[in-house]
Amino acid sequence: MANIEVIPVTGIPEVKPGDDLGGLISSAMRKNRLRLKDGDVVVVKQKVVSKAEGRLVTLSGVAPTARAKKLARSMGKDERLVELILKESVRVVRAGHGVIITQTRHGLVCANSGIDQSNVGRGVVALLPEDPDRSAREIRVALEKASGAEVAVVVSDTFGRPWRLGQTDVAIGCSGIDPLLSYAGKRDRFGYRLRVTQPAVVDEIAGAAELAIGKLGGIPVAVVRGVGYARGEAGVKPIVMPRERDLFR
Amino acid sequence: MANIEVIPVTGIPEVKPGDDLGGLISSAMRKNRLRLKDGDVVVVKQKVVSKAEGRLVTLSGVAPTARAKKLARSMGKDERLVELILKESVRVVRAGHGVIITQTRHGLVCANSGIDQSNVGRGVVALLPEDPDRSAREIRVALEKASGAEVAVVVSDTFGRPWRLGQTDVAIGCSGIDPLLSYAGKRDRFGYRLRVTQPAVVDEIAGAAELAIGKLGGIPVAVVRGVGYARGEAGVKPIVMPRERDLFR
Repeated sequence: MANIEVIPVTGIPEVKPGDDLGGLISSAMRKNRLRLKDGDVVVVKQKVVSKAEGRLVTLSGVAPTARAKKLARSMGKDERLVELILKESVRVVRAGHGVIITQTRHGLVCANSGIDQSNVGRGVVALLPEDPDRSAREIRVALEKASGAEVAVVVSDTFGRPWRLGQTDVAIGCSGIDPLLSYAGKRDRFGYRLRVTQPAVVDEIAGAAELAIGKLGGIPVAVVRGVGYARGEAGVKPIVMPRERDLFR
Repeated sequence: MANIEVIPVTGIPEVKPGDDLGGLISSAMRKNRLRLKDGDVVVVKQKVVSKAEGRLVTLSGVAPTARAKKLARSMGKDERLVELILKESVRVVRAGHGVIITQTRHGLVCANSGIDQSNVGRGVVALLPEDPDRSAREIRVALEKASGAEVAVVVSDTFGRPWRLGQTDVAIGCSGIDPLLSYAGKRDRFGYRLRVTQPAVVDEIAGAAELAIGKLGGIPVAVVRGVGYARGEAGVKPIVMPRERDLFR
């Protein structure tokens, strides 16, 4: 039971398509005299990953289909944005109150297929990375090479939740870390066998990072130090609920 | 953008009904030479709050109704436990795959009305506190009196989520802190007006604390230091989604 520390990484410049994100993060850390240690988890906001990977779309170039136009009208949304939301999704889970909740190609269930209009420039939107686990892996490999430390990387995004207002940051990609910490089969201090407890550590790590870097400051990276986790390379897939166990499709 | 630190509070003895929880926490902090500072958030696990408040029920004393027996049979659950789940709820949101998701009297939507069988002793279950915001307030007042610092308190519990496996700790009660941090109406660096972003800071704080204290160690309290938040006394109520905005009832 050790202290946990969340350290914002300042000094990362505005990220542009084609940028080497791992290199930008390493160089900002060097300038801050922040040395990565074994076990550190580096949390990177989805927005800068999408920017570096060129996942930006100018709305004026999008031609909406009839289906997108119809849904956009009923939701009071931009029909070009709705076109992209549908294109990035495998199905619409719910639509109402101005929110379109979809399941993305990655299996993530979130508002607007994770497409975001903030902090990217007017008339431009950012799509989610094509494969956020791969993005996390590439950044991890670059950071490990630059630092010599064995670290994990979490790509985080801000999701709403049913039944609770407000959003929390969760992991949409990860590398070097098992997303779930399993206590299943272990016993509590009274001998009761813990059956279902599997803390979603990557999500709690993403949330902890968000507390430190917030929304307005333009700081897209934080180091979370001191978390106990298991090393793994399955990405976030183990956290995506299989359809047959899902009560809220 | 400051560092955040999460500090486990060790040395809290097994909590029993009638215990003065604020006093036990203060005394453990004193022994650890941990001095609360203005702005600290003290996260307390629901389990010890329920224990201190005597919210423990021995299953052998519960007489299940016909409704509970029927639901228990179809779910493969203990009918006395199901009786308590129904009693603590205002409605069943979903039941399936061995999970009964209810809305509690407090408005929380969670599995089994938040009733927990782990770490309380065999044949005994712990109900949620009657009013977790009041519990948080009482602990906050006691800690502020003992320390002289102005702090916030979050009572946390472990909830599952739709669409994502694993659980995260969230706030079921709070005092001295606004549960949502509002950026609404503020503008990003490109002038885009942020409309919906309201980080659920109390939930991210609860999750960060869980990372430090885990499930098996018997450490029920952590201090989260360095989080920017607004002081408020509305409890977690602002985070409970109003029925008319809920897409997943």
